[in-house]
Amino acid sequence: MEREKALKLVKEQLTEHRYQHTLGVMETAISLARHYRADEKKAELAAIFHDYAKFRPKEEMKRIIIDQGFPSDLLEYNPELWHAPVGAYLTKTEAGITDREILDAIRYHTSGRPGMTLLEKIIYLADYIEPGRHFPGVDEVRELAQESLNQALIKSLQNTIIFLLKKNQMVYPETFHTYNDLLKKQEA
Amino acid sequence: MEREKALKLVKEQLTEHRYQHTLGVMETAISLARHYRADEKKAELAAIFHDYAKFRPKEEMKRIIIDQGFPSDLLEYNPELWHAPVGAYLTKTEAGITDREILDAIRYHTSGRPGMTLLEKIIYLADYIEPGRHFPGVDEVRELAQESLNQALIKSLQNTIIFLLKKNQMVYPETFHTYNDLLKKQEA
Repeated sequence: MEREKALKLVKEQLTEHRYQHTLGVMETAISLARHYRADEKKAELAAIFHDYAKFRPKEEMKRIIIDQGFPSDLLEYNPELWHAPVGAYLTKTEAGITDREILDAIRYHTSGRPGMTLLEKIIYLADYIEPGRHFPGVDEVRELAQESLNQALIKSLQNTIIFLLKKNQMVYPETFHTYNDLLKKQEA
Repeated sequence: MEREKALKLVKEQLTEHRYQHTLGVMETAISLARHYRADEKKAELAAIFHDYAKFRPKEEMKRIIIDQGFPSDLLEYNPELWHAPVGAYLTKTEAGITDREILDAIRYHTSGRPGMTLLEKIIYLADYIEPGRHFPGVDEVRELAQESLNQALIKSLQNTIIFLLKKNQMVYPETFHTYNDLLKKQEA
């Protein structure tokens, strides 16, 4: 799918603020894909569609998670997690994108997962460091992302988990499994 | 088993520093048991034996974990975790204590587990806040422990996980699951 068509489809689904964020993720993802020799076209499309489901009603997301047999423990955790797997599903069924790598990069862009692919890592990080993001620690991750995708990912996961812990929030198990997995591979 | 006999058995296994820590855990555990109406005698014995295996050679601990069918993923994580299940095993086989509640309190005193019993929570916390402990945040947990065992536990788990994350160390999944479990029950 051409970039213009993809952006048009996504723009209808998002607030202007979220659309600008999406453009930032797109540019960052393409740049990371070039740097780490991933497929730039796939990075572009995955980035464009990563928040496709962001503003769907919770009830609709819940229904899709149940109907599609997505991990039901998602429903016990922060609804912020739901738009990622639901977004992958709707990108396929509504936008007609069937590439598995792209869909998985959308699906795991919030939780991560052990054994993330290169494209999944790029989308996860692009979402975290795109130029519109401003929060403590983001510059450190931006710099790390130029040196090591895994180091940047570990740091962003540490930041995210610590943020949740300090807010007395639960941490979705896939997220800390992702952290442990990256650290284990680093040690090996 | 009488306190004096138990202390004698344990003293032989520990450094003087660790023995003093054990006495602190014992006093704290008895005090918490009284406060929260748990079995003071069981709290006393679990506390006395909680670090029984602390100075066993790693190879011996490893062998026991494998031979006894303890979760083998323990071996992939910090060896600091090993002395707890191994300690429960040796407290049974060497000291002859067979009470399941006492042994489980020893077994889960480092990792925690979802659905911790009252005694398990008391030993976990007593180990964290006994008077010989000095680290950032310990006083806050000491105060919380007088008001709510669960609140104190949540705070100590947050502190522990953040400490590990900041040191770039893996976090044993049971510890995360314990944290999520306590938070989920608090919300319910």
